[in-house]
Amino acid sequence: MLRICVDMDEVIADTLSEHLRRYNQTFQEEVSLDDLAGKGLWEIAPHDRQGQLRAFLDAEDFFEDLPLMPDAQWVLKELSSRFEIFIASQAMMVPNSLGPKYRWLQMHFPFIPPTHYVFCGDKGILQADFLIDDMPRNLHRFSGQGLLYTAPHNLLATGFTRVNNWREVERYFAGVGSR
Amino acid sequence: MLRICVDMDEVIADTLSEHLRRYNQTFQEEVSLDDLAGKGLWEIAPHDRQGQLRAFLDAEDFFEDLPLMPDAQWVLKELSSRFEIFIASQAMMVPNSLGPKYRWLQMHFPFIPPTHYVFCGDKGILQADFLIDDMPRNLHRFSGQGLLYTAPHNLLATGFTRVNNWREVERYFAGVGSR
Repeated sequence: MLRICVDMDEVIADTLSEHLRRYNQTFQEEVSLDDLAGKGLWEIAPHDRQGQLRAFLDAEDFFEDLPLMPDAQWVLKELSSRFEIFIASQAMMVPNSLGPKYRWLQMHFPFIPPTHYVFCGDKGILQADFLIDDMPRNLHRFSGQGLLYTAPHNLLATGFTRVNNWREVERYFAGVGSR
Repeated sequence: MLRICVDMDEVIADTLSEHLRRYNQTFQEEVSLDDLAGKGLWEIAPHDRQGQLRAFLDAEDFFEDLPLMPDAQWVLKELSSRFEIFIASQAMMVPNSLGPKYRWLQMHFPFIPPTHYVFCGDKGILQADFLIDDMPRNLHRFSGQGLLYTAPHNLLATGFTRVNNWREVERYFAGVGSR
């Protein structure tokens, strides 16, 4: 069976919306997703707010209750009958997120066993046929076929096979034979 | 550079000694490492103690303060100049261990960056040249060269390249060219 690794933040979990919500609330701003085309929240926030931007992620409750990306659940459920699905998250950058991410996955993707969760840093460690990820640098490190999942920050990235949403992921894999 | 993945429990951390210490203390037993030749603690404990055996591992403090395996630190430090070292632990079986394991690694192996920690379930996901592990089933899943690190429970396992301690690990890799 071919193996697909799936990133969490910005791919199955809508981390950016929650980050933006806390940013706007704390600083009385009205930054929208459109304002972030081609850049990260880190790039538009003034220097003296960078510490707080990071502190939002370190908060114990940040990763507990993130919204799902549309259609991620049913598409992954469907793909899991034909492919071996692993969730691969760069959780080591935010160690407080390890427990919450584990619980979030169990709640929203009960059909993926915990033996198929991978919390790592460098995605070059993954032995898989495909990786769906929003970070160009992760796809560069990966040895298999990368699929860039569209997020505001990567809109200007070129040279990748791109999927814009989970319906496109479904269509992409409809054309891939399992073995 | 060739890449070596290193398991945690029973390879760099002396998990069994701590498990055994709690078992003996709780049940007023005097089970020794020698009593465990060829079997796991799970196999010698009576049926009605299996729940407690698991509960020891789930305790918040179990993985915080495990003793080190002799010579693991300096050998890994030395190897890290010639090889890419990743720590790969099956932490998903005991989700409470995720945070403690992260902190334990930072304290005892500060020369290995958190980007090179991998908390996983199935070690078939690892893309590496070598895996040092005490579990035969993990080595069977791994696609590179496995090295079975001797532990009481695996004394009877055959068909593996075996290393009995960290000095033997050092000698093994002295004969492996880095690229």
